[in-house]
Amino acid sequence: MSLDVEFASDNHSGVHPEVMNALMEANKGYSISYGEDEYTLSAKRLLRKVFGSNSDSFFVYNGTAANILGLKTVTKSFHSILCASSAHLTVHECCGPERFTGCKLSTIPTEDGKLTPALIEPYLMGMGDVHMAQPKIISITQSTELGTTYTIDELKEICRFAHQNNLLVHVDGARLCNAAVYLRTGLKEITKDVGVDVLSFGGTKNGLMYGEAVVFLDKSLAADFEFYRKQGMQLTSKMRFISAQFNMFLQDDLWKKNAEHANQMACYLEKELKMIPHIKLVQKVEANMVFVRIPLDYMKKIRKKFYFHVLEQDPSVARLVCSFNSTKQHIDGLIDGLKQICD
Amino acid sequence: MSLDVEFASDNHSGVHPEVMNALMEANKGYSISYGEDEYTLSAKRLLRKVFGSNSDSFFVYNGTAANILGLKTVTKSFHSILCASSAHLTVHECCGPERFTGCKLSTIPTEDGKLTPALIEPYLMGMGDVHMAQPKIISITQSTELGTTYTIDELKEICRFAHQNNLLVHVDGARLCNAAVYLRTGLKEITKDVGVDVLSFGGTKNGLMYGEAVVFLDKSLAADFEFYRKQGMQLTSKMRFISAQFNMFLQDDLWKKNAEHANQMACYLEKELKMIPHIKLVQKVEANMVFVRIPLDYMKKIRKKFYFHVLEQDPSVARLVCSFNSTKQHIDGLIDGLKQICD
Amino acid sequence: MSLDVEFASDNHSGVHPEVMNALMEANKGYSISYGEDEYTLSAKRLLRKVFGSNSDSFFVYNGTAANILGLKTVTKSFHSILCASSAHLTVHECCGPERFTGCKLSTIPTEDGKLTPALIEPYLMGMGDVHMAQPKIISITQSTELGTTYTIDELKEICRFAHQNNLLVHVDGARLCNAAVYLRTGLKEITKDVGVDVLSFGGTKNGLMYGEAVVFLDKSLAADFEFYRKQGMQLTSKMRFISAQFNMFLQDDLWKKNAEHANQMACYLEKELKMIPHIKLVQKVEANMVFVRIPLDYMKKIRKKFYFHVLEQDPSVARLVCSFNSTKQHIDGLIDGLKQICD
Amino acid sequence: MSLDVEFASDNHSGVHPEVMNALMEANKGYSISYGEDEYTLSAKRLLRKVFGSNSDSFFVYNGTAANILGLKTVTKSFHSILCASSAHLTVHECCGPERFTGCKLSTIPTEDGKLTPALIEPYLMGMGDVHMAQPKIISITQSTELGTTYTIDELKEICRFAHQNNLLVHVDGARLCNAAVYLRTGLKEITKDVGVDVLSFGGTKNGLMYGEAVVFLDKSLAADFEFYRKQGMQLTSKMRFISAQFNMFLQDDLWKKNAEHANQMACYLEKELKMIPHIKLVQKVEANMVFVRIPLDYMKKIRKKFYFHVLEQDPSVARLVCSFNSTKQHIDGLIDGLKQICD
Repeated sequence: MSLDVEFASDNHSGVHPEVMNALMEANKGYSISYGEDEYTLSAKRLLRKVFGSNSDSFFVYNGTAANILGLKTVTKSFHSILCASSAHLTVHECCGPERFTGCKLSTIPTEDGKLTPALIEPYLMGMGDVHMAQPKIISITQSTELGTTYTIDELKEICRFAHQNNLLVHVDGARLCNAAVYLRTGLKEITKDVGVDVLSFGGTKNGLMYGEAVVFLDKSLAADFEFYRKQGMQLTSKMRFISAQFNMFLQDDLWKKNAEHANQMACYLEKELKMIPHIKLVQKVEANMVFVRIPLDYMKKIRKKFYFHVLEQDPSVARLVCSFNSTKQHIDGLIDGLKQICD
Repeated sequence: MSLDVEFASDNHSGVHPEVMNALMEANKGYSISYGEDEYTLSAKRLLRKVFGSNSDSFFVYNGTAANILGLKTVTKSFHSILCASSAHLTVHECCGPERFTGCKLSTIPTEDGKLTPALIEPYLMGMGDVHMAQPKIISITQSTELGTTYTIDELKEICRFAHQNNLLVHVDGARLCNAAVYLRTGLKEITKDVGVDVLSFGGTKNGLMYGEAVVFLDKSLAADFEFYRKQGMQLTSKMRFISAQFNMFLQDDLWKKNAEHANQMACYLEKELKMIPHIKLVQKVEANMVFVRIPLDYMKKIRKKFYFHVLEQDPSVARLVCSFNSTKQHIDGLIDGLKQICD
Repeated sequence: MSLDVEFASDNHSGVHPEVMNALMEANKGYSISYGEDEYTLSAKRLLRKVFGSNSDSFFVYNGTAANILGLKTVTKSFHSILCASSAHLTVHECCGPERFTGCKLSTIPTEDGKLTPALIEPYLMGMGDVHMAQPKIISITQSTELGTTYTIDELKEICRFAHQNNLLVHVDGARLCNAAVYLRTGLKEITKDVGVDVLSFGGTKNGLMYGEAVVFLDKSLAADFEFYRKQGMQLTSKMRFISAQFNMFLQDDLWKKNAEHANQMACYLEKELKMIPHIKLVQKVEANMVFVRIPLDYMKKIRKKFYFHVLEQDPSVARLVCSFNSTKQHIDGLIDGLKQICD
Repeated sequence: MSLDVEFASDNHSGVHPEVMNALMEANKGYSISYGEDEYTLSAKRLLRKVFGSNSDSFFVYNGTAANILGLKTVTKSFHSILCASSAHLTVHECCGPERFTGCKLSTIPTEDGKLTPALIEPYLMGMGDVHMAQPKIISITQSTELGTTYTIDELKEICRFAHQNNLLVHVDGARLCNAAVYLRTGLKEITKDVGVDVLSFGGTKNGLMYGEAVVFLDKSLAADFEFYRKQGMQLTSKMRFISAQFNMFLQDDLWKKNAEHANQMACYLEKELKMIPHIKLVQKVEANMVFVRIPLDYMKKIRKKFYFHVLEQDPSVARLVCSFNSTKQHIDGLIDGLKQICD
């Protein structure tokens, strides 16, 4: 019996059927490469509609690149990037950000993956001192790596604090759609409207095959981006195939439908998990992920059937992820498995 | 009237229908991310079959990355990489190789894009001298950026020369399939069997949507590759979709059929061009590209209808590229256009 | 009245007269550049005598370079370097280490600037996981930035722990002489003999004009050093002038005399400070630095006369540094000033 | 008998006695570190007097750093730096420039080490094309690595050409003093007044122990320099000792006296060499270096007595360098040796 990998990551789900159709549709005839094609022009227009007429957006292959290239474009190598200790940027990118930006990542411990001005302030040392990395940008993840979501007020507060201190704000939005859906609002309301400067807008975890957008909410920040993208090995030749996916993603709100489904499934999973003895929720469920503590001997047993991640720093905490194609049936299977073990 | 872009690049063609089918086939259910999936394991097995049991292969998104990450894995930042002045690596990667490897690119002028030991030798200076970049690896392109192809004997000679001088040999094989077809031989015969150490094995220009393989012919060279790939922003989460394309590419020799067609079309194009007055072939046609000199005033006229590249250093030389889905009809259209202008 | 800067840094003292003599002595006739001269050969011999016949040593201009180049030589860009949160390496090098090594600095909070295996262990995550920086080397400072000194047993314990986990140990020895003197032992006893792998051996803070040594306790680790030194802008042309200083430093134990004096002065300063009301020692005095808490309004007054550093994260803590040419008279002046303020 | 190394490099000479005196003078009492001291403030004032009130100057340890940090401050990693194929920057810095700037060095062959607009123009390709390194700055060496010197008109022409093409001009002035003396003019006349933007102003080859200045002729270009200097391991703690040397260098024109002597000795050497059969001058003598072709078997014999460099690409060409403390007697010794061999 092979392991069930469904709950390990939203990267384990495949491609949404409508996205696959869009790929097939785009495969007609010749199309100019490197971004001058009509698919890309259209996708950029749609993104401008979503994120405001002063924004500019660019496609890259994956989230690692979206974060690193967005940050590189607005920093110099003597700057520091402030982020939560739990940020993907610092934990799971194999020094990629340090390597390509040269910057120091100043990592700030949090309870729930969410930064606040009060948490950040003590890290704003050394401005103007040539011996010290110069704080330049705050990077937050929305929704966070711990499945929590910043409220609009929290976002505004961080952006206000940042700008008062001459800092920019970057959002790792690999799960931005899940956040917007949780907050019952649009994508612009939680980025442009609260004061975000640079955004990684994720597609892959929400039903695309590959492709993410780097969005500069103020396009004047984007001047060097295309050179860094090329140099950073992220300029795709047949760009129409990323753009066609984004066209489908943004038309008729496919991003919203997919994220809504994933979030709903996470709520259902949460509700069911709460009813199992010995299992404890460790973070609020505000997106498509559920973090629960499972006694270690039970954990061992359930992981023989289901493959999912546990926290590196605490192997008794499981991360369970839902995606656009999770089903109640699948969740019930996991719940049944857990009930048999935990009872 | 929009421009005809067919002959500008093999990146302008789309995805081969069988590859598109493979993508749809792979989109079933959940699949573990980052390369542990069955599609990837199968593709790696196929590549081992092609390039020898001592080889190891890895997927990246594009050719820029295949070259840079392959080279990075076997160099240190004080090394130099020797390549032709016309190499894509030095001309069209926006300092990406310098940026990620730190190495100097020692560029060597050639007539036809092909290096020889005699051309390389004067550049082997300063070995052991800490003031000078240390020559470490020769990078050749097969087929070259000028549409020419190294013979098996030429490849052997370069590899022998390299190894005698403690150098490695890298092949930028964005068009390796075209070379194999031109030489009427297999992929292994022009890489492993002649002594190549590291290879970028191209797929995108030959019918894939995206995806290239970095092949270490001796897998002991590959020890650090996966860390550099992750750090270099090139680890794809839903890897099954690159792997599925390569599975199709290698099964039943789709790579060969596609390259054969592209090469044949280039031959046909060459034959027809030769019959047009004022137009002169400037390189041998040994792959899927034809380089011709067209008087500048004729050039201006033809480029109003057809979009293609001319040499930066000589705008009277056109590069015309054929691909897996070029048609005689299309070529006849170009030829007719040229005849009307040049007569 | 200009500020008294004596206690701000051991970099504020000048050059020991015997070192100045050595510089004058070395200024005779022509001497081959870049390290082939007799002064350098002699200094390297002396260093081999001090640190063992299997060691190899190289000169650089300053401590920043000694640390960064020593670490670069034994790491790859996907590695992480573990150090105390208070380490100069991470706090006061303006991202230099990240920039030149590409590595992540994993910073570990401590009470007194000293790491222990127990503190380090939780940071050894992700070994073999391509998503995560790979722990490669522990960097400790001896004596620490907080004026404390690792005992020989503590050093042994860290080195044993490191090697058991396939990690190396680096020592930032900008104040190694002060540590040796405090521990009443030799330089080899606290480096080679406890298991250290790479050392920055400081001279400038202890009476030299400029110049530090990078010491590889096992010379097989040093293979690439000279290339990185040149590339890192640290190969001095007239090397005899660094070497001559080190010859003087090591002959007749000038390093020891200077450090002994500095440590004794710090002890005297500590004793006197203890007798002043409202002033509290915050770290043990185990080298040439004294850290004391001074009520903020007193602090403000004393800093009008004396220039010294306070902790960025706590401006009520003063760092007072003694050096080879501190005098009791000078210290008495500071103490008098403080007494007038604090009484 | 040990080899005579006098003619191998101006780095083989020691420190001018007056510079040594200045070092001793500066070694009095305490002095604030990292550049806030009175010696540095005074040296910066003197440099402003020399290079104009709109300039700003900074000290680094060596010429490698002066070039790399000056260039880094005004470039981004997707830029290219245009220089002669013979430039120290590209030949003898072990990829340091590539490593720290990320830029491509576009190297242009010359006859005599001197670039001209006509030579540079063909290398200005690809502006605005994201696939190609973006030309940003022309770096020339004055006097050149081949002992030749740009005239004021030639300098003006290059600067005009550069600025017309939105390029900056950098001067590697390791031997700028020799050029000024040869042209019988001042330092400002061949930098600020002709339109140079960034300058490495060399001291070490002309009588200092260590230390060079990076001069931004327009100080608005210097905004990031101090951060890159610190990050680039080039901020010296006891800066007064570089500054004191420059104070002496610039007061009473010591730079001029030293360079005049070196140039005169080179003229004398040239005159004497011309009279030896079989020896042929290969470059004009316009600074302190003489390049001569010596038949290879004679070369072998003379190098048994005298240590000097020959060209890597042509071992029959010797580079003979004079310095501030060369003597006619010494030159006569070399000439006698050559005469014995060549007759």
